[in-house]
Amino acid sequence: MKLDDNLEQRTVNSGESTQYRNFPMVPRVIFGSGSFSQLGDILAPMRKGPGAPFIFLVDDYFDEAGFIDRIPRKQDDEIIFISAREEPKTTQVDALVAAIRESHDGIPSGIIGIGGGTLLDLAKAVAILLNNKGGAKDYQGWDLVHSPAIYHVGVPTISGTGAEVSRTTVLLGPEKKLGINSDYTTYDQVLLDPDLTKTVPKEQWFYTGMDCYIHCVESLTGTYLNAFSQSYGEKAMELCQEVFLGDIPAGESRDKLMMASWHGGMSIAYSQVGIAHAMSYGLSYRLGIKHGLGNCLVFQHLGEFYPEGVALFEKMVEKHGIELPQGICADLGQEDFDVMVNVSMGLDALWENALGKDWRKQIDPGTLESMFRKI
Amino acid sequence: MKLDDNLEQRTVNSGESTQYRNFPMVPRVIFGSGSFSQLGDILAPMRKGPGAPFIFLVDDYFDEAGFIDRIPRKQDDEIIFISAREEPKTTQVDALVAAIRESHDGIPSGIIGIGGGTLLDLAKAVAILLNNKGGAKDYQGWDLVHSPAIYHVGVPTISGTGAEVSRTTVLLGPEKKLGINSDYTTYDQVLLDPDLTKTVPKEQWFYTGMDCYIHCVESLTGTYLNAFSQSYGEKAMELCQEVFLGDIPAGESRDKLMMASWHGGMSIAYSQVGIAHAMSYGLSYRLGIKHGLGNCLVFQHLGEFYPEGVALFEKMVEKHGIELPQGICADLGQEDFDVMVNVSMGLDALWENALGKDWRKQIDPGTLESMFRKI
Repeated sequence: MKLDDNLEQRTVNSGESTQYRNFPMVPRVIFGSGSFSQLGDILAPMRKGPGAPFIFLVDDYFDEAGFIDRIPRKQDDEIIFISAREEPKTTQVDALVAAIRESHDGIPSGIIGIGGGTLLDLAKAVAILLNNKGGAKDYQGWDLVHSPAIYHVGVPTISGTGAEVSRTTVLLGPEKKLGINSDYTTYDQVLLDPDLTKTVPKEQWFYTGMDCYIHCVESLTGTYLNAFSQSYGEKAMELCQEVFLGDIPAGESRDKLMMASWHGGMSIAYSQVGIAHAMSYGLSYRLGIKHGLGNCLVFQHLGEFYPEGVALFEKMVEKHGIELPQGICADLGQEDFDVMVNVSMGLDALWENALGKDWRKQIDPGTLESMFRKI
Repeated sequence: MKLDDNLEQRTVNSGESTQYRNFPMVPRVIFGSGSFSQLGDILAPMRKGPGAPFIFLVDDYFDEAGFIDRIPRKQDDEIIFISAREEPKTTQVDALVAAIRESHDGIPSGIIGIGGGTLLDLAKAVAILLNNKGGAKDYQGWDLVHSPAIYHVGVPTISGTGAEVSRTTVLLGPEKKLGINSDYTTYDQVLLDPDLTKTVPKEQWFYTGMDCYIHCVESLTGTYLNAFSQSYGEKAMELCQEVFLGDIPAGESRDKLMMASWHGGMSIAYSQVGIAHAMSYGLSYRLGIKHGLGNCLVFQHLGEFYPEGVALFEKMVEKHGIELPQGICADLGQEDFDVMVNVSMGLDALWENALGKDWRKQIDPGTLESMFRKI
């Protein structure tokens, strides 16, 4: 079982010299309140004609007439509403691809993902699988995708995950939770319209925003950092602090959190996450807890490792009156803890980034279990 | 005569709603000290075979064996050394394109620009013209390029211009100095190796770095700013301050200035420069002064408009013992001033960004002439 899809993300030491990753960026981006109304104009030149529809994968939170009318659907385009209540799965991707192939004769003109990290990751994977044989699980890993994805567009409706800029799509497969980490995964186009985040429920806003904040803390304090990632991470961190600790108008706050997510995602190019993500993966794997909440549940207890980061986090929790769920691990058995500890400790790169090459001298299974028991 | 290639860069107000520009980003970037040694690996998959060479356009500053040996030339690839002592010209682009067509039967596999803003702009324009009919002057303006450029790679060897990320290439034509501002202008690949900036002479380092600093001051204090450009501009500004006012090790300083230039270039996506650039254009057009120095000569006298920015600039000049040339305009005649004033005042967008829609009530030709006379 392997959870970490980011092991190879930084540099590779190949003998004498350091080799750097050649990092893909989203080649086209539009930003602005209300820019969602331009989606039709953006898609128009990419439309390949009859028999090649656009497929909109949309968080079912937006399944209401007011929003549906704003989706620039034409001809035989299709809107598929998807629940984001669970993490995205390889079987879900395969089912979507099969359904799209059954409904339409040709390859679609493109896939548009509209939603949070779950929808954005699903849309990336569907775009890849529509142009590659086999199932999604065959491509989980590093650079296993051979044919380019079909044109795909990401439209985030909540800010924090960084999925809109990343080169991975993390899926729960039959045997592993792992990303399809490929240059072809990255979106061809991203549309950043902060207005789309207006209706995000407060808890969700907080937990997803903290995904960005926490991976910035981890990357900026990590041993893998370089100047490229640092500059993006620092900016994302500043924006998070303005949003979660400052007193700025709501519109400005939405703008800034959307940019924080963007820069936070870029900051991972040459860096790595750390202990919170390592433990959160364990928690998610065993208990199905969603990523943003999982990070928060873990991070509150990591003051020993990230003193400044946790102190600020506590201020943010307090300022926004967030009540984190308690006693998540209270009724778990020894087997649960063993699985979570094993999953977490298998993520070498995350621990090494946090604690250095000799991290195993600092963390053993017993210590880690006691950390899980606090949650 | 029209100097401003950035008038349309921000949003367009089309009747009722604001339309945002869909901005192209460099789709692939590699960052790291020594990453220049990976250029051959990056180019290899883009090589189209015999008869389709790579053409390296290189600042003649690097015309020495130690550097030439590091350029990954193969088969019938060609290295063309070019002086960057003057601003790039449309005739220079046309001559390069003609020479490349004469020397090689097919279209090259790609163009690699290695140098500062001049070389980076020339390489962009040559890549466009190799795949478009006519001369470079035919494409100066907004979105006039119809066919994609051939594959082109930018390798900056000095930091500050932002040419490595921008969607324009500013050329001096027979009748105007204007950018080829097109989605096809943006580089397909950028390689950021801070080690390449090790040998930059101090004055050049300062003036080019100040290009970044000054356009950040102008964009961040401007009326056109939005959250996207602000986040990049603020980060570029912070990095400039660390580099030019902090005391950080030389390697870290090179890394950070390279990232400042990168973010500074991105910050122009939805913003605009201001008075320093408006006046500097006038100075360059009439006197042939290079862009970075021109900005500094002007900016020192703009304390009234940019009080904080100029105060920090003065500290930077002092800290690095820079002696700006004096009396540049001392011996000029009235016609010189008239031309410079006219050129500057023709740049409506820059003045509007700096002073608001009623800028003409605040600046008249007489005031502007007196500002030029101080230089």
